[in-house]
Amino acid sequence: MTANFPDDSLILHTDAYQLSMMQTYFKKGIHERQAVFELYFRKIPFENGYAIFAGLEHILEFVDGLHFSASDLAYMRAEAMFDDDFIDYLENWHFSATIRTPREGEVVFNNEPILQVEGSIFDAQLIETPLLNIINYQTLIATKASRIRSVVGDQGLLEFGTRRAQEMDAALWGTRAAFIGGFNATSNVRAGKRFGIPISGTHAHALVQIYRNDYDAFMAYAQTHQDCVFLVDTYDTLRSGVPSAIRVAQEMGDQINFLGVRIDSGDMAYLSKEVRKMLDADGFYNAKIYASNDLDEETISSLKMQGAKIDVWGVGTKLITAFDQPALGAVYKVVSVENEAGKMVDTIKISSSAVKISTPGKKQVWRITRHSNQKSEGDYVALWDENPQAQTELHMFDPEHTYLSKHIKNFDARPLLEEVVVGGKVIYTSPDVQTIQAYSESRLDHLWSEYRRGLNPQEYPVDLSQKAWDNKMNLIQQVQSYVDELDRQN
Amino acid sequence: MTANFPDDSLILHTDAYQLSMMQTYFKKGIHERQAVFELYFRKIPFENGYAIFAGLEHILEFVDGLHFSASDLAYMRAEAMFDDDFIDYLENWHFSATIRTPREGEVVFNNEPILQVEGSIFDAQLIETPLLNIINYQTLIATKASRIRSVVGDQGLLEFGTRRAQEMDAALWGTRAAFIGGFNATSNVRAGKRFGIPISGTHAHALVQIYRNDYDAFMAYAQTHQDCVFLVDTYDTLRSGVPSAIRVAQEMGDQINFLGVRIDSGDMAYLSKEVRKMLDADGFYNAKIYASNDLDEETISSLKMQGAKIDVWGVGTKLITAFDQPALGAVYKVVSVENEAGKMVDTIKISSSAVKISTPGKKQVWRITRHSNQKSEGDYVALWDENPQAQTELHMFDPEHTYLSKHIKNFDARPLLEEVVVGGKVIYTSPDVQTIQAYSESRLDHLWSEYRRGLNPQEYPVDLSQKAWDNKMNLIQQVQSYVDELDRQN
Repeated sequence: MTANFPDDSLILHTDAYQLSMMQTYFKKGIHERQAVFELYFRKIPFENGYAIFAGLEHILEFVDGLHFSASDLAYMRAEAMFDDDFIDYLENWHFSATIRTPREGEVVFNNEPILQVEGSIFDAQLIETPLLNIINYQTLIATKASRIRSVVGDQGLLEFGTRRAQEMDAALWGTRAAFIGGFNATSNVRAGKRFGIPISGTHAHALVQIYRNDYDAFMAYAQTHQDCVFLVDTYDTLRSGVPSAIRVAQEMGDQINFLGVRIDSGDMAYLSKEVRKMLDADGFYNAKIYASNDLDEETISSLKMQGAKIDVWGVGTKLITAFDQPALGAVYKVVSVENEAGKMVDTIKISSSAVKISTPGKKQVWRITRHSNQKSEGDYVALWDENPQAQTELHMFDPEHTYLSKHIKNFDARPLLEEVVVGGKVIYTSPDVQTIQAYSESRLDHLWSEYRRGLNPQEYPVDLSQKAWDNKMNLIQQVQSYVDELDRQN
Repeated sequence: MTANFPDDSLILHTDAYQLSMMQTYFKKGIHERQAVFELYFRKIPFENGYAIFAGLEHILEFVDGLHFSASDLAYMRAEAMFDDDFIDYLENWHFSATIRTPREGEVVFNNEPILQVEGSIFDAQLIETPLLNIINYQTLIATKASRIRSVVGDQGLLEFGTRRAQEMDAALWGTRAAFIGGFNATSNVRAGKRFGIPISGTHAHALVQIYRNDYDAFMAYAQTHQDCVFLVDTYDTLRSGVPSAIRVAQEMGDQINFLGVRIDSGDMAYLSKEVRKMLDADGFYNAKIYASNDLDEETISSLKMQGAKIDVWGVGTKLITAFDQPALGAVYKVVSVENEAGKMVDTIKISSSAVKISTPGKKQVWRITRHSNQKSEGDYVALWDENPQAQTELHMFDPEHTYLSKHIKNFDARPLLEEVVVGGKVIYTSPDVQTIQAYSESRLDHLWSEYRRGLNPQEYPVDLSQKAWDNKMNLIQQVQSYVDELDRQN
């Protein structure tokens, strides 16, 4: 490779236009103006009723100690796009914005901020690209994992996707997101080491091929491991794989912990029932049947409907790539910015498509639950200076169909966005992944099952406060006047 | 985060079962036996007629200096799955296998080895998972990029996908793969720095929102940059965006290089034609129209059919996630292994599905071209000791439908697999990405257009030599005898 600056640099993991705009702000002297940016998605993935927020840990790791290295600056000097005075400025720049997010594992919805950055326009724009890159992926995978968990019930659920993941970071952070969404373990040893996720795996077809028959391979494995799951489909599942596994289990007796057998190909419904009969016939009632072969929530549901005798599910490709929808389209929009006079002014992005019009103003998301049953009534997106906790009655209405509304009393309002980075410093320490997973489960318990079902869920209300709604209408009006005025001039 | 071993380690970026099998090999004393593993995919992605091989550079980076760190070993000691004597052995282990691949950018096909590892079974298994993780993704993206390039012709093609990529590595390596497949530039500055890919980008909607009108924003940008592409759809493309861009271009005159305008939303076919008229009406015939908004080869074709006046295409989500097929299912199979007597013995994996039966034996892929026109006649997969270059006539037949065959004279045979790592040492240095891109283009030139078209291409012949085919049939027979024999015993 002949690139001149081959050393890596995460701060340049951003779109060129962020740096290019930063140069404009700097040279026009407005780079220190304050702004608020908010990150949100417009549509819940997989037509699910909710999403699971994930990605925070990687964001904190990314932000910590963020600065331009000498080599970054040398590279930029060699690019015609950037001026020297701007690059000189970057040399002493340090990230100093504040970031607010929900906790990882939180249940979140479309059209509400799931991350907020407050700081100089310079700082806020620089990190847009990595924030989206990380949250779009990890939230997608945690949500997919949660969908799969919901059909698996309390059976074992293993993440086996590394070989099909979209490069290394996706395998690593994707399996963490899957754990947050409800998986029990991963095959990725690196993720086991870094995040404390339990690892799982016994052997592949290669072991059987190398020993050239099932029995010898299983016996070799059993002689060198306590816990044994034998992969039985290298040559013939029912005629050689399972009989050999049973023979080894019988011969080794208490010397091993015969956990069960794994099937990786063929007709899973038929094979699993036959294998169960064979195991039971020899008294191995507790031996489990593991299955793995392009599974997802749909195939697992179908296998269960067919009465397949599968106890533990290994899921790879379809989870780790979110195969049926491999991208979450979260966006990051400026909602408020300091003007010439030092006053914060709200701002909007207009589109001919109503759902693409941004909601101006710095906002908080309040989760509203009823005292009586602790179930969520909906999310209430309000301007930052509003406090629903101080209100005795809340008027909640659908921001698209405003005539759909309800009044709520005797409610709790819990703010979702909390400070995790203040003045550029990380102030939040993530709990371990087991705690995050348990937190996520507990948050899901507050949702009515109508929002939780995987197919055709009810739409969870994400409502705007009257003040936030009025503010938005007002800004749409202002932009229309500006465009109309231009039209008259032309 | 409370994991006990939070420091990162790429060597553990593997499936637990690789290490678990390694323990078996080690404890049974067969870990130094030699083996050959081959990596291949069974189906070309996107129903394309060919794939573009990519991922080599990252593999070389991964393999270089591969060893277990003290912290890796400490983590493994804490896991019940591994024994101390095995971990002691790993402390002094170094990777020493040989790896052969095509050059990056090579045109490759299904059911032929696109990577071969020869070494101890221990070494070969350890790296299976990262090899698949890297090649599956990068080959997928290079192929997708090549499909997009084929509909774009010689127009500009920019990679804008970082924010929607599946985590950071996918953005970084994905844009490199896209460049290999024919893209011109990327928005990802880190990729620009590391790989020498040209970077591209001017400004986002935020610039316009911060200045609160198009004209002021464009003017500020023009005063701080030489090359200008103005994003015109923040408020109203035709009524405010384009008129403001034209006004700034007129006022700044030769002080800037007015490259054109970018449209990121709305009806691209309609808008681009209207924008073209407006630019032309004011004499900006050379100003280009950039478009970006969930584009892929299908939407680009459709826009071209509609006569859209788009000159430069920015492609994000659909490319970087390979949205319509986000995983390439390459697999990695042992094809030959040393037996007790020190002799290499070929080995097979059987399946009830014919396409899933592996092809035993260490193989080379020979690309066969006719002297007369230098066009590829097909690929000829032969056992390692065969040499088609020494033959005057080649009998090529379809390995699934063996009655489909042809005899070829006056041909060239070029071997695709070349050594890149020997005895664990990287011996190959990748050329720069521009050279790789040009190489890929030149390889595609040897393919008949019938194989290259994006929709319903002809199937390119990937044939087995008679010797490789006989070897496969022989091993299938052996396995059947083994299974039948077991059946008789039971």
